[in-house]
Amino acid sequence: MAGNFEPIASTAGGKQPRTERGRKTMRKLLDAAAAEFGEKGFHDGSISSITRRAGTALGTFYTYFDSKDEIFRALVGDLSAQVGARAAVALAGETAALEKERAALAAFLHFAQEHQEIYRIIDESEFVDPKGFRQHYETTASRILARLRQGSASGELRDDLGEAEAWAIMGMNVFLGLRFAVWSDGDKPEDIAAAASRLLSEGIAKK
Amino acid sequence: MAGNFEPIASTAGGKQPRTERGRKTMRKLLDAAAAEFGEKGFHDGSISSITRRAGTALGTFYTYFDSKDEIFRALVGDLSAQVGARAAVALAGETAALEKERAALAAFLHFAQEHQEIYRIIDESEFVDPKGFRQHYETTASRILARLRQGSASGELRDDLGEAEAWAIMGMNVFLGLRFAVWSDGDKPEDIAAAASRLLSEGIAKK
Repeated sequence: MAGNFEPIASTAGGKQPRTERGRKTMRKLLDAAAAEFGEKGFHDGSISSITRRAGTALGTFYTYFDSKDEIFRALVGDLSAQVGARAAVALAGETAALEKERAALAAFLHFAQEHQEIYRIIDESEFVDPKGFRQHYETTASRILARLRQGSASGELRDDLGEAEAWAIMGMNVFLGLRFAVWSDGDKPEDIAAAASRLLSEGIAKK
Repeated sequence: MAGNFEPIASTAGGKQPRTERGRKTMRKLLDAAAAEFGEKGFHDGSISSITRRAGTALGTFYTYFDSKDEIFRALVGDLSAQVGARAAVALAGETAALEKERAALAAFLHFAQEHQEIYRIIDESEFVDPKGFRQHYETTASRILARLRQGSASGELRDDLGEAEAWAIMGMNVFLGLRFAVWSDGDKPEDIAAAASRLLSEGIAKK
């Protein structure tokens, strides 16, 4: 279950709660929606089942969301923000450019192990909420690109890095998560992140 | 439109045609299904619209497939095989390990530019045909891994490459295709493949 993180996406629809109690209720509804859609998918998921999981009254749902579509869109924005927040926390302790990428990937793999539903939900958003799907990846790629530019500026990374490298790193991370955090969780995120980090630091050619 | 390639997946359901004419009809139906599902998605796609696109009688459909589900599964297997066949053709001209990866990616980007529907179909298979979805990526990753092992054996690539690197490369390729072949087609596959190739050959660190 989710619920450990602050983010409640403010851009993804849903009325913004004004009180701490309202924030907690919205958080509960979003976590319940993650469990519901992660298990049943969008079409078979239902608002009544979400409120049951959240332990709230059906009317409460409509205080925050107008429809199943709306909570799904809010959830995609929320998960996307949680991924970003988790990376930001992990990065805070790192100063070297390559260590930042390693820390971001390890944090993502931990997150994906704990919240395996994120893959199904983000992947299904391609069909249910195409705008949210695209926004998630564009936002994530631009965060990576900003880090690469920082690394180039500090002289640690090559000067010619751009969008292609940012999308390549994001794709790497997404598929490593699918393979090693969702389809198998016996792998240590740190080991996978170390392999990816070596690929980024020196490539795969033999020296 | 597809239709330039041999593969008709024999493992993905659908009756195997015995004659060349039957093979052509099946190919037409699969190409029509790619256009139909790529445009409308699985749920809104229909058998009658597929046969209309293929220019065949409705009854002909049932000579080859039992249902909409069955042709969708066959299509996923077929697209997966087409991706593999296209890579194999591109690789045939290369001998150096890193050039093989570059050629495979460039070929995939060309394929994705010409067949943008492949993303929607493969992505939707996660929900409509989870087994086919997983098989596509596992097969693709194991092809990459086999190439990496060859490169290690020939002394061109590091000796410690494994599944993590294979999945990392596949993820890189999938997301570069999404960004530069589907969401934008103004980019030259060769330029994107060159950037990815440099990442693989030397990493992103400044020398």
